Amino acid sequence: MEGKIITCRGAIVWAQQEQMKIEEIEVDPPRKGEVRIKITATGICHSDVSGQAGKLVSTKFPVILGHEGAGIVESVGEGVTKFKAGDHVVPIFLPQCKNCMFCKSDKTNFCVEFGTQQRGVMSDGTSRIRCRGQSIHTFLGFSTFLEYSVVPEINLAKVDMKAPLDKVCLFSCGVTTGYGAAVNTAKVTPGSTCAVWGLGALGLAAVMGCKNSGASRIIAIDINSSKFDIAKHFGATECINPNDLDIPIKDHLKMIAHGGVDYTFEAVGNVEIMKQAFESAMPGYGVCVLIGVAPYKAAMTLSPMDFQLGRTLKGTIFGCYKSVDSVPMLVDEYLNGKIKIDEFITHHMKLEEINDAVDLMLQGKSIRTIIDMKIAE
Amino acid sequence: MEGKIITCRGAIVWAQQEQMKIEEIEVDPPRKGEVRIKITATGICHSDVSGQAGKLVSTKFPVILGHEGAGIVESVGEGVTKFKAGDHVVPIFLPQCKNCMFCKSDKTNFCVEFGTQQRGVMSDGTSRIRCRGQSIHTFLGFSTFLEYSVVPEINLAKVDMKAPLDKVCLFSCGVTTGYGAAVNTAKVTPGSTCAVWGLGALGLAAVMGCKNSGASRIIAIDINSSKFDIAKHFGATECINPNDLDIPIKDHLKMIAHGGVDYTFEAVGNVEIMKQAFESAMPGYGVCVLIGVAPYKAAMTLSPMDFQLGRTLKGTIFGCYKSVDSVPMLVDEYLNGKIKIDEFITHHMKLEEINDAVDLMLQGKSIRTIIDMKIAE
Ligand SMILES: [Zn+2]
Ligand SMILES: [Zn+2]
Ligand SMILES: [Zn+2]
Ligand SMILES: [Zn+2]
Repeated sequence: MEGKIITCRGAIVWAQQEQMKIEEIEVDPPRKGEVRIKITATGICHSDVSGQAGKLVSTKFPVILGHEGAGIVESVGEGVTKFKAGDHVVPIFLPQCKNCMFCKSDKTNFCVEFGTQQRGVMSDGTSRIRCRGQSIHTFLGFSTFLEYSVVPEINLAKVDMKAPLDKVCLFSCGVTTGYGAAVNTAKVTPGSTCAVWGLGALGLAAVMGCKNSGASRIIAIDINSSKFDIAKHFGATECINPNDLDIPIKDHLKMIAHGGVDYTFEAVGNVEIMKQAFESAMPGYGVCVLIGVAPYKAAMTLSPMDFQLGRTLKGTIFGCYKSVDSVPMLVDEYLNGKIKIDEFITHHMKLEEINDAVDLMLQGKSIRTIIDMKIAE
Repeated sequence: MEGKIITCRGAIVWAQQEQMKIEEIEVDPPRKGEVRIKITATGICHSDVSGQAGKLVSTKFPVILGHEGAGIVESVGEGVTKFKAGDHVVPIFLPQCKNCMFCKSDKTNFCVEFGTQQRGVMSDGTSRIRCRGQSIHTFLGFSTFLEYSVVPEINLAKVDMKAPLDKVCLFSCGVTTGYGAAVNTAKVTPGSTCAVWGLGALGLAAVMGCKNSGASRIIAIDINSSKFDIAKHFGATECINPNDLDIPIKDHLKMIAHGGVDYTFEAVGNVEIMKQAFESAMPGYGVCVLIGVAPYKAAMTLSPMDFQLGRTLKGTIFGCYKSVDSVPMLVDEYLNGKIKIDEFITHHMKLEEINDAVDLMLQGKSIRTIIDMKIAE
């Protein structure tokens, strides 16, 4: 079994801004510290589209995108002892090597290996995936728009066999990031007032995090009012479409929230909205968390005065959760009913429909589409 | 005694950017909730000069500047029970009314009355000070370049009679702000690495706060190397003049501090330096605190990516200390030898030399000059 090359299907972006094309891919066996997974389901995230458009600094073409997957271990490389064939796993774009200064610190979930994984190849500098004889790049350390994928073991969480992989795959990125932004990064306190801009998966997860933290007022903001029902389902107490207001949302919030909002969250990835969210935070102690991913060249223009008045601005990566350690725990909270996941999933599609799935997301018609990858054995 | 107008001397700025002129001032008796103080000593702060130059949003002319004073209560207005003639007091630009939502919160030292005090007059909309029949504005709620000053009681801390007023006056602004920025705002942890830009009173106090918090490495940064001896006296373990480097200070710090600094402090008030200090903070968990006061129209241009990597940016006002409650406690720590104050004082001058004292500060030749206001009784 060892050494076998698997031939399967994957969705390649051959050049920046091109559509994805389903191609036949050769997947090498895992090498030292790597695990080969049969991907059974994957979500699609805005970061995939940003990568496709060349808006993330690290994307190299041709590339197979996708990073919100889950699957079953097919084989393991040299030295891998924590995983074996048949394990149910969720790969996570943020590694946890447990060896670096960040992994050993309890102040951060950052890992030095994250930086080394942004080159579109594995840690030895080579790729495990080929199409028509050409090496193909991975996206954020690996690829999930692909039926079999090789993933570094430090990016892999083993999850309860009872957990449906086509649901818990969503813990690998946006849902955990948004939820943790409220629970860990902002540390939302009971009774507080929160505001969340952008009601995609990130924002809805932040709404859920605010609710589970005991916030008494959760203001959900989007220019697409069709998202308001689902936002209320996740815990929003009121919803605002800025286009319905005669005054800037910042001024409106100051008016309705006694001068400012305790915790604000930007889940859009737009620098102008980031500025609004920051300036809407309460003077004295308001905290704004940036969840959305802006294009890598984007810049915010902020006034030092707004900081001096006692506001704090933070970012978050993967919701400040230690990645490998936290996902099994979050999966358990899902199985126990504390965290909702099913409600994020608005569509199920097949790999060959992936470009349509992207369009649905960009049109604001889906929250998350799950690509089901049933493979003929 | 009640109702007596006192005629004394004060230093007026008649119009934006003009020098201060010593004039004869009429000081009205204190009204409800106000206290009249014989100012015995005052420091000069960069904010006074910013006010003089019209760089702070709130300054109205003609104005008497000065906000780092201390003195002795001369008389109290209606309803004032916490102070009596003869008490030694330090007025603080940040009030603590103990009644507003901020004062009642333990998350902030902000007070809603701070906003109402930025109009250059007392809370009833009138001034207590006149020169040649013309009403004169106060600066940050009151004025201290003036021999007798009327101060709202909510801005007043009573201090130990043993404390020398010409020293502890410095707790009313910069020293407390810089010290608290390290101790309260950043919450510097033992063993950490810190960097402080700008070695005036604010920055030196931040250095002292880092040292008293147990930081093991404190990097002091200034383009004026003559400040390095005093920085070491306050606890700096190494000093850097960015002009002596071949590479940007940010890159140098990354090199010498394992990728970034745990806590960075900007004590200059320059948006470019604020950006450097923020970007020098460690990815994953670095915290940058803005202490310096930038011109009110200044804007920083920051990358969302630098936040997403796990950095936090905060501001501080009065070092996050509840103003009236904290100053007596800080004075006690000074008397007990835990906090240094004397070393900030490089010069003593008279009120009529105040313009020279400002020049000394602007030339970087003084840390703090104390204006001694001995009044012939
Ligand atoms: Zn690590
Ligand atoms: Zn994602
Ligand atoms: Zn108050
Ligand atoms: Zn000051």
